[in-house]
Amino acid sequence: MLVLKSKNFQKHISSYKIVNNKGVTVWLTGLSGAGKSTIARHIEKELKARNRQVEVLDGDLIRTWLSQGLGFSKKDRDINVRRVGFVANLLSRNGVIVIAATISPYQDIRDEIRAINKNFIEVYVNAPLEICEARDVKGLYAKARAGEIKGFTGIDDPYEVPMNPEVICESGKETVEESAGKVIRALEELGYLQVAAESLS
Amino acid sequence: MLVLKSKNFQKHISSYKIVNNKGVTVWLTGLSGAGKSTIARHIEKELKARNRQVEVLDGDLIRTWLSQGLGFSKKDRDINVRRVGFVANLLSRNGVIVIAATISPYQDIRDEIRAINKNFIEVYVNAPLEICEARDVKGLYAKARAGEIKGFTGIDDPYEVPMNPEVICESGKETVEESAGKVIRALEELGYLQVAAESLS
Repeated sequence: MLVLKSKNFQKHISSYKIVNNKGVTVWLTGLSGAGKSTIARHIEKELKARNRQVEVLDGDLIRTWLSQGLGFSKKDRDINVRRVGFVANLLSRNGVIVIAATISPYQDIRDEIRAINKNFIEVYVNAPLEICEARDVKGLYAKARAGEIKGFTGIDDPYEVPMNPEVICESGKETVEESAGKVIRALEELGYLQVAAESLS
Repeated sequence: MLVLKSKNFQKHISSYKIVNNKGVTVWLTGLSGAGKSTIARHIEKELKARNRQVEVLDGDLIRTWLSQGLGFSKKDRDINVRRVGFVANLLSRNGVIVIAATISPYQDIRDEIRAINKNFIEVYVNAPLEICEARDVKGLYAKARAGEIKGFTGIDDPYEVPMNPEVICESGKETVEESAGKVIRALEELGYLQVAAESLS
């Protein structure tokens, strides 16, 4: 099964209607190194090819532009995530498909963001900690293990697995194309994206 | 003369073309109490009546959602203004008319925001300090005079008058409707807004 038929997924389906240029916030959550930004860029490319307005808000961009100075305490993480949710809402209510890619480890704040974003799809980018740590693209896990970074998600700070995501990407096993494809499929099934011609045949 | 024929205004005119749903950042700058937010809301109402996508980013909204914790030093003000400029750019490049209403007292940072926003209109909301202080809607001038607020623009922190704004609203003399009307006229003249039918007759 590509897309979860979770409670939140069903809620969309109940008001199912293909609307062109309907904005939506696609919220990618998962551990550092799980592949959120890479998947986000793949989705962006596909959506642009389909002439949709799309913006990627990833962690690095946000930390540079909106949240410099914030740390990694729960309080600071919540403020950061709230800012991303605020900006995502401004964009998506104006017809943009926003792909937010942040660790956003806490369920309560993800639920808060869902509540303020009328159109919202939660995507759990699920790669096991061992794989993320083995990749360690930014060298952050090594620093966290050495105690140089405190409060690192998965090491000495919790990651709360989404309880009702619309989509789960098994990014430890799948290719980036497969993971991105699941999200594209969900956007189609939920009425945010016209089904591509080749998918109809 | 309603709209200034400044250098920056002329730059737009040289590539003059009516394009529907072209986004733009309308940047209202001026002293606290000069009437920025009120003018912004009037512009918003008129643009909505013309079926345009519009978002108002005013100081209070921004301090609540994007910049809580920042103070009023030049450094913090610059960070705040940069965030507004970043969000405005995300929106305007997706077809939204963004009306930003912040004191933004420094020319260098306003120029920086102009540089990152492809479509940008600077509006100087000009009311004399005496009038703003006499209004003192939020009681801030009284606090600044009493020394309870430090670094207050116009009292013990400078306001740098825009050198080349596209529009000047004389909000100390004009009605809100007149000021908002100037901005609407500029949007029409600069090709961001279809000229209203009644203006054509």
